[in-house]
Amino acid sequence: MASGNAPSASGTIAGNLVLSTWHFGKTANRAAWEALTRPGTDALDAVEAGCRAVEADPEVTSVGYGGIPDAAGEVTLDAVIMESPARCGGVACLRGFPHPISVARRVMEKTPHVLLVGPGAEEFARREGFTPQTLLTPAARHRWESYRRENERGQPPGQRASRHEPDTESHDTVGVLVRLADGRLAGGCSTSGLAFKLPGRVGDSPIVGHGLYVDPNIGAAVGTGHGELISRVCGTFLIVEEMRGGADPQTAIRAALERIARACRPQPQQQAAFLAVTPDGRWAAGSLRPGFQAALRTDAVDTLLPPQTILLGDG
Amino acid sequence: MASGNAPSASGTIAGNLVLSTWHFGKTANRAAWEALTRPGTDALDAVEAGCRAVEADPEVTSVGYGGIPDAAGEVTLDAVIMESPARCGGVACLRGFPHPISVARRVMEKTPHVLLVGPGAEEFARREGFTPQTLLTPAARHRWESYRRENERGQPPGQRASRHEPDTESHDTVGVLVRLADGRLAGGCSTSGLAFKLPGRVGDSPIVGHGLYVDPNIGAAVGTGHGELISRVCGTFLIVEEMRGGADPQTAIRAALERIARACRPQPQQQAAFLAVTPDGRWAAGSLRPGFQAALRTDAVDTLLPPQTILLGDG
Repeated sequence: MASGNAPSASGTIAGNLVLSTWHFGKTANRAAWEALTRPGTDALDAVEAGCRAVEADPEVTSVGYGGIPDAAGEVTLDAVIMESPARCGGVACLRGFPHPISVARRVMEKTPHVLLVGPGAEEFARREGFTPQTLLTPAARHRWESYRRENERGQPPGQRASRHEPDTESHDTVGVLVRLADGRLAGGCSTSGLAFKLPGRVGDSPIVGHGLYVDPNIGAAVGTGHGELISRVCGTFLIVEEMRGGADPQTAIRAALERIARACRPQPQQQAAFLAVTPDGRWAAGSLRPGFQAALRTDAVDTLLPPQTILLGDG
Repeated sequence: MASGNAPSASGTIAGNLVLSTWHFGKTANRAAWEALTRPGTDALDAVEAGCRAVEADPEVTSVGYGGIPDAAGEVTLDAVIMESPARCGGVACLRGFPHPISVARRVMEKTPHVLLVGPGAEEFARREGFTPQTLLTPAARHRWESYRRENERGQPPGQRASRHEPDTESHDTVGVLVRLADGRLAGGCSTSGLAFKLPGRVGDSPIVGHGLYVDPNIGAAVGTGHGELISRVCGTFLIVEEMRGGADPQTAIRAALERIARACRPQPQQQAAFLAVTPDGRWAAGSLRPGFQAALRTDAVDTLLPPQTILLGDG
């Protein structure tokens, strides 16, 4: 089984802990950690700050501003934020707002709903006072124009899309889990989705129990990689249920990766990876393939230095 | 606990079985059963036929054509179809196409994706040859106009929507589970969502593991009621996982209802209900509150008669 040798990393931390996905997780961790130094900041504020820092970075081409557009040239963003089953919110296929994680938080706080999508979500963001902004950077537009020339052979964008296999280069969601020393948990994730995706395609990231799940009494998990693999097995909800049954975070992640390998028959280039943490500070990271990175931030690391990065690939 | 006395019904059937939600589940069952009499029809075809029959019925104001619109007067539809983790597809916030269950099936069969939403899903439906149609019936428009007069007090629709509590009268998803005598399973569900919902709001119905989950080796479950309650606990995935752990369908449904009651603190008028079936023909239905109905169709009932309706309420 492909996941039999899945690389993973784990540990236990007594104090505050921030755990984020990929190399840009260092950016998220720095912002989240700084937020925690401000009086009155809770785990949710730190999660939001961490995601916002990556959303704002134009160098990250899979999240927020600077994200690679869909096949039609539109940048559409997905995000979810959660601290408990009763407290969660998501937005999907949101155009023109650079911080979907903050819109998702507003869905959680201002509506009785869990998910808003498309133009309705954009109208909600406008009413809530978020400022529309162009998200397509010149660099991302240039890459889309190259993609269109190479792939569409003069056809209008999307014409081939019903048989369309998106470019799988860019599928790196930022996922952030925060565990405070007193055991409180929160999580968030944010993405622009698959590069040159079929317009309207939504992956795991904005969906409760797919890209993110948090049960304050059990633990939290966040996913990244090829979103459909995670959605098909409700990956993060599965991890939290495994932990509810007594599994440690590492074993729970392994169970989700094995389920994906067995039930979804992923292609060799398709990645899936998870982070998980418990209220008592046990944490783990694991992936279906080498190459995944997780960024861990704790009291033991000076906040002015880049946080420690746990390299899970090639292990 | 509210669900301690949750009404439920269950049994075991050796032959073909169709189990659908609410009184209009009889309509779904009749169409699904008829589909099964045609040569070459599989469980998925029967599910699709069952959902389509309810989608086409203008008298059903919570599904398909004739559905109550959102706060802005738009009818937007959600659906999902599934036969395994590798074979599932959904559409959300789809305007102008009366059969979202068929568009969802096309997402499953023609794309590598699990979920398409909004204008991208509509463009996909057009490319796949589905015919656009006005979904707002005169009766539904009349009810929306009354709603707007009574609730918006002259403000443009949606202006109050960030604090908007939708009308909870209409939240009755059609869910259809089919189990063939040889053990094959499939499921689908379809809805127009909460009456007068905040535009862009998506509930559990189009989300894999929220409104529907099918594992061909374990069982299938479908949900209906106040969608957010189901989404917050990945209700149908939870039921299938409980069955994977050895629970019978009735016990698994009870576990999901208890999770909802504990984790979401539902309001007294908020309903959640589930159907579940196993490959070997054990089935159950259960709800958080009285009033839910399930429609069961088996070989023991003449297909020309209305199928038996299991009344779960007031029990």
